[in-house]
Amino acid sequence: MGIEEINHNDTICALATAPGGALAIIRVSGPEALSVVDTICRSSIASAPANTIRYTHVADGSELIDEVVVSVYRAPHSYTGEDSAEISCHGSSYIITKILEALITNGCRMANPGEYTMRAYLNGKMDLSQAEAVADLIASTNKATHQIAMSQLRGHFSSELSSLREQLLRLTSLLELELDFSDHEDLEFADRNELLEIAQRIESHISHLVQTFEAGQALKNGIPVAIIGKTNVGKSTLLNKLLKDERAIVSDIHGTTRDTIEDTIDIQGITFRFIDTAGIRQTVDTVELIGIERTYQAMDKARIILWLIDEEPSKEELQVMQEKCEGKSLIIIQNKIDKEEKIQASTLSSLTTHFITISAKFGTNIDQLEKEIYTVANIPEIKENDIIVTNARHYNALLRAQEDIQRVISGLEQNLSGDLLSEDLRMILSTLAEITGGEITPNEVLGNIFKHFCVGK
Amino acid sequence: MGIEEINHNDTICALATAPGGALAIIRVSGPEALSVVDTICRSSIASAPANTIRYTHVADGSELIDEVVVSVYRAPHSYTGEDSAEISCHGSSYIITKILEALITNGCRMANPGEYTMRAYLNGKMDLSQAEAVADLIASTNKATHQIAMSQLRGHFSSELSSLREQLLRLTSLLELELDFSDHEDLEFADRNELLEIAQRIESHISHLVQTFEAGQALKNGIPVAIIGKTNVGKSTLLNKLLKDERAIVSDIHGTTRDTIEDTIDIQGITFRFIDTAGIRQTVDTVELIGIERTYQAMDKARIILWLIDEEPSKEELQVMQEKCEGKSLIIIQNKIDKEEKIQASTLSSLTTHFITISAKFGTNIDQLEKEIYTVANIPEIKENDIIVTNARHYNALLRAQEDIQRVISGLEQNLSGDLLSEDLRMILSTLAEITGGEITPNEVLGNIFKHFCVGK
Repeated sequence: MGIEEINHNDTICALATAPGGALAIIRVSGPEALSVVDTICRSSIASAPANTIRYTHVADGSELIDEVVVSVYRAPHSYTGEDSAEISCHGSSYIITKILEALITNGCRMANPGEYTMRAYLNGKMDLSQAEAVADLIASTNKATHQIAMSQLRGHFSSELSSLREQLLRLTSLLELELDFSDHEDLEFADRNELLEIAQRIESHISHLVQTFEAGQALKNGIPVAIIGKTNVGKSTLLNKLLKDERAIVSDIHGTTRDTIEDTIDIQGITFRFIDTAGIRQTVDTVELIGIERTYQAMDKARIILWLIDEEPSKEELQVMQEKCEGKSLIIIQNKIDKEEKIQASTLSSLTTHFITISAKFGTNIDQLEKEIYTVANIPEIKENDIIVTNARHYNALLRAQEDIQRVISGLEQNLSGDLLSEDLRMILSTLAEITGGEITPNEVLGNIFKHFCVGK
Repeated sequence: MGIEEINHNDTICALATAPGGALAIIRVSGPEALSVVDTICRSSIASAPANTIRYTHVADGSELIDEVVVSVYRAPHSYTGEDSAEISCHGSSYIITKILEALITNGCRMANPGEYTMRAYLNGKMDLSQAEAVADLIASTNKATHQIAMSQLRGHFSSELSSLREQLLRLTSLLELELDFSDHEDLEFADRNELLEIAQRIESHISHLVQTFEAGQALKNGIPVAIIGKTNVGKSTLLNKLLKDERAIVSDIHGTTRDTIEDTIDIQGITFRFIDTAGIRQTVDTVELIGIERTYQAMDKARIILWLIDEEPSKEELQVMQEKCEGKSLIIIQNKIDKEEKIQASTLSSLTTHFITISAKFGTNIDQLEKEIYTVANIPEIKENDIIVTNARHYNALLRAQEDIQRVISGLEQNLSGDLLSEDLRMILSTLAEITGGEITPNEVLGNIFKHFCVGK
């Protein structure tokens, strides 16, 4: 069903928790929410005061389905802004299905993904960027992604945008003032300088937001790390030590299951994602580092490269690494410090200043290595209210706004007429409004945003 | 931690929903539940009236964790009978972990499996057999298992047992009356007949419950079905048609993943479980039915055998089947009815009256076959308040009670003295009390019962 055909005024229901737990929550929202839930419950829900809980039984005709607890919310004081009920039932798949069936029989329809949050947006409970933060919050698995999503949900990004909007409106009104005095040539010159200054401030503000996107993406998806090195240098042992998860790996002889699971570690709240771990675990790999396509591919995808060595690298190897590590962060790791051979850090210093000696086997210096990985990742420390752009839709809007404000700046520098510049400024205001959904958002855009949500939220 | 060291008076917390949903519920119960939740929330929970909902923020010191809704319950009007709070938060793994950490920091401990329900039992909210029904209810996946669990949770089994208890007490008091009049020989004789009648009624009552166990087990675990037949007779096609799940199977070429998943179908609310489906899907299997050990093993485990044929079976085959299907329900299925060869049902009638012609390929008569499977399963229709024993602990207690009442009956018949019989009756009363936990239940028994629960229930 296309979003354009979606009715926003009917009553929807969905399972809001994952299946398989002791408890499950079925969420019902819309004008008939309380009367429909009342129909399937054996004690009165329709008469229950707002924000109260009723212990009752759900039945389908004469068949008793479950003993449940129903939370009652009344518009506008609910998540969606509509009358809502949450049925907390036992987590049996049979019970969940039967309750949803009973709700649908009595007039509800199954909610689409994200439809509760979409209604919250449509009913003015949150703006569009806050609605998107809800999905990010649910998906957050570490401190960094959690803080970014929470900050966005709390409206910090929205107020950043509204401060930008104020500056843009100020610029527009000054331009209009200039137009009114356009016959006073000397006045105009002074104004243009002030206008340019404001425009540059706006540009730097937008550019800052644009720049946070790379870090935002890295935080959201995990920072890609490649472990490379010759066969038997200890890559697999090192990976296992970092993952602190040896049992799972040992028990999984063929590696077939693990292939689909990404191997990640959290260091100080940041996720690092190891690339091509299946390749690392293939101990039958052919011998040399140089010339192995798979290794090069992993290095290409990585932001951080861990090069594990146990002897002095050859000149050819150093040269290949120099080339392949361009723009990446490289940590050279000498493994097997328990063995005698010592490698001179000086021969490696042309490649990187990050050199560390460890024993993967005995776990020596693994903590040090983790600190080193965190350091080279160079993630700015994220504070509670920091704004980091993680959403591609926001990023694209900001890029367009950046382009437009840069055109305004060069227009001001070239003394273009104020009405042309005004046009561009109006465009920027409208582009930024897209992010929060402040203007009317096309159904198609809404559909694209909410289809990635889980059902029940 | 052994159950004997468990403190039943502290405050426990656990995730009560499965991880991975839009929402999650964290359950807190115990004397400090409301004050601990109050500590981590930014608006007052401790002052909230019973059965109300508070929208608030959970924070760990200065770090905001989530916007949540807290349901407040006050003793004794809660699931456990204690003060309780349920925190409904976003389903992020990070958020769930942080909230549990904050609760533990402030004085909660993680709940053991089933500990909420154990507390409900210890606080007199339900008896032991009802507590066990909670786990069955959560695990129920079809109408039959749901109804049995719900009936048990509603106390129907408990009242059945208490009616048995009344009859046993009546028998005991009559025996005591007899003892008082033991010098009147003629009186005793009359009494003994009445006593015997009561004892036999009790025995038949207990025996009936014992007999429901087999059906109960079948319903709980699914009724085992084996599909057998020669290679290329269409076993795999038939299985797929029954499972209505062709895509999953086609996409899974090696069958490695499916091996661990049980193939089941639901017919009229009853689960049927296909045995050795990996074997059925092995098209490289060697040719003949007779003499394949794997087929025999599947038949041994089955309660229903579907024998798929497309030509007249040989005498040897009929003989083997006669032997192997002893005590099982056999359905003979002629596949490929679209082809010409017709098999005479009369040659098969010595084996079974259940003979059906289908086309597995075109799905012809599959509905008929399902009806046939349901019929031969011979499951008694289960009504809402029917009592079916599904729990091995209950079954074992009933078996012991059955043995003891049979000893009482033969004692009565052999005119044993009343005080010996009284001893047996007391034993039966105590055995039945084990089921509902009416007498003091040893910690070890409690531990065994609740360790199979999920955490959070």
